[in-house]
Amino acid sequence: MKDKNYTFDKVRIVMVNTTEPGNIGAAARAMKNMNLSKLYLVNPRGYPSAVATARASGADDVLSSAVVCESLEQALQGVHLVVGASARQRNIKWRQMDVVGTCGEIQKTTAIENQTVAVVFGTEKSGLTNEELDLCQILMTIPGNPDYFSLNVASAIQVFAYQNYVYATTTKFEASNNELASFNELENFYEHLAQVLEHIDYFEEKRPKALLMRRLRRFFGRATPEKEEVAIFRGILRNIKPFKG
Amino acid sequence: MKDKNYTFDKVRIVMVNTTEPGNIGAAARAMKNMNLSKLYLVNPRGYPSAVATARASGADDVLSSAVVCESLEQALQGVHLVVGASARQRNIKWRQMDVVGTCGEIQKTTAIENQTVAVVFGTEKSGLTNEELDLCQILMTIPGNPDYFSLNVASAIQVFAYQNYVYATTTKFEASNNELASFNELENFYEHLAQVLEHIDYFEEKRPKALLMRRLRRFFGRATPEKEEVAIFRGILRNIKPFKG
Repeated sequence: MKDKNYTFDKVRIVMVNTTEPGNIGAAARAMKNMNLSKLYLVNPRGYPSAVATARASGADDVLSSAVVCESLEQALQGVHLVVGASARQRNIKWRQMDVVGTCGEIQKTTAIENQTVAVVFGTEKSGLTNEELDLCQILMTIPGNPDYFSLNVASAIQVFAYQNYVYATTTKFEASNNELASFNELENFYEHLAQVLEHIDYFEEKRPKALLMRRLRRFFGRATPEKEEVAIFRGILRNIKPFKG
Repeated sequence: MKDKNYTFDKVRIVMVNTTEPGNIGAAARAMKNMNLSKLYLVNPRGYPSAVATARASGADDVLSSAVVCESLEQALQGVHLVVGASARQRNIKWRQMDVVGTCGEIQKTTAIENQTVAVVFGTEKSGLTNEELDLCQILMTIPGNPDYFSLNVASAIQVFAYQNYVYATTTKFEASNNELASFNELENFYEHLAQVLEHIDYFEEKRPKALLMRRLRRFFGRATPEKEEVAIFRGILRNIKPFKG
């Protein structure tokens, strides 16, 4: 498993001309949830603001270390790849990629030492201007409903940050600590189950034993039962009829 | 390319005990951006609300068709797969999947005619209770920063809805021919199972009913039982003791 921080510290989020401070707070929260911490704000309106801090909800460290800039150029200093986020495709053809494809480019870029990336989000009403997009190398389009695309800017940052997190880390679940039932335990269980089903007169002409036992095996097999779970079922069966093994 | 709507119309979002109406509006907007429209609200506080409508920002059709319910069970009527969203892994192990894996299960389920899915999101402060999770077959965990996981509920819905959109529009599945058991069929089965276990004096101090029933639900839920399989188990139970429903 690769070092999770190798990408995250190298990705900065740039918000341009944000008009609602609440969106800046929500963006900080979205970022921190997905391990991003570097926030750049170009001419934010009404910031800093109590509304932003309230919406950040514990991600105030991201807010307090945010860099406020006077121009987009300033926010992009030192960066090696600039991605512009857009809801829609544009007339003039930038290099357009979806979020997954963009995250792949970000991985390639940040894999090289000291190379950093900026992902730029425009103002709430109208997104990035063509002049702002001129500074971007990739136009990242977020897929969605073709008949209604009105993604909140913090939601767009949330979607990117999630996809970037998933891309950068291979999500691995803790292997369950619970030991699986062995072949023999399962076979003994099936034998006991068949005995009990005989005992309660379950099998009949319309319910032939061979077919039903096969279906039950298929069902239990699909769930890959744990040792403890087989013990529970054996306990139930014993309360109906002891096992004659 | 398959019909994009074949999944979207069959996925309902269920918000349980939401305390901030703004989050309901933001959720409606997140959903509509990703082609989802079916919203169920279990005991929402302070709803309907002007704040919710403002945050919905053009997705007020999703809000106005939202179904307000008095219980989670009511919101799950007629559903074939119930997914519970959780920020963290739990002590008792449900069948856990990340968002991508969950979307795969949703695709498989909705590929069969008339089968629908609910994805359930808990209250803001604390998420879903264990009792609410008992009604879920899959625990969907959203990956993220292990040191700070405090995803806003509408952001969690945004992440799911985005991933579901990407999954549904790019992946193709062979449909299984076997119809899954519905929520109601499974609940009736669990109730019958509990009655039979009482009848055979299975529960005792060392085998408390609540714990054992949760483990059995977890086991059966993991296997996503087919309608026919549940019918087989009901047949077995009837041979031990008829159902007093």
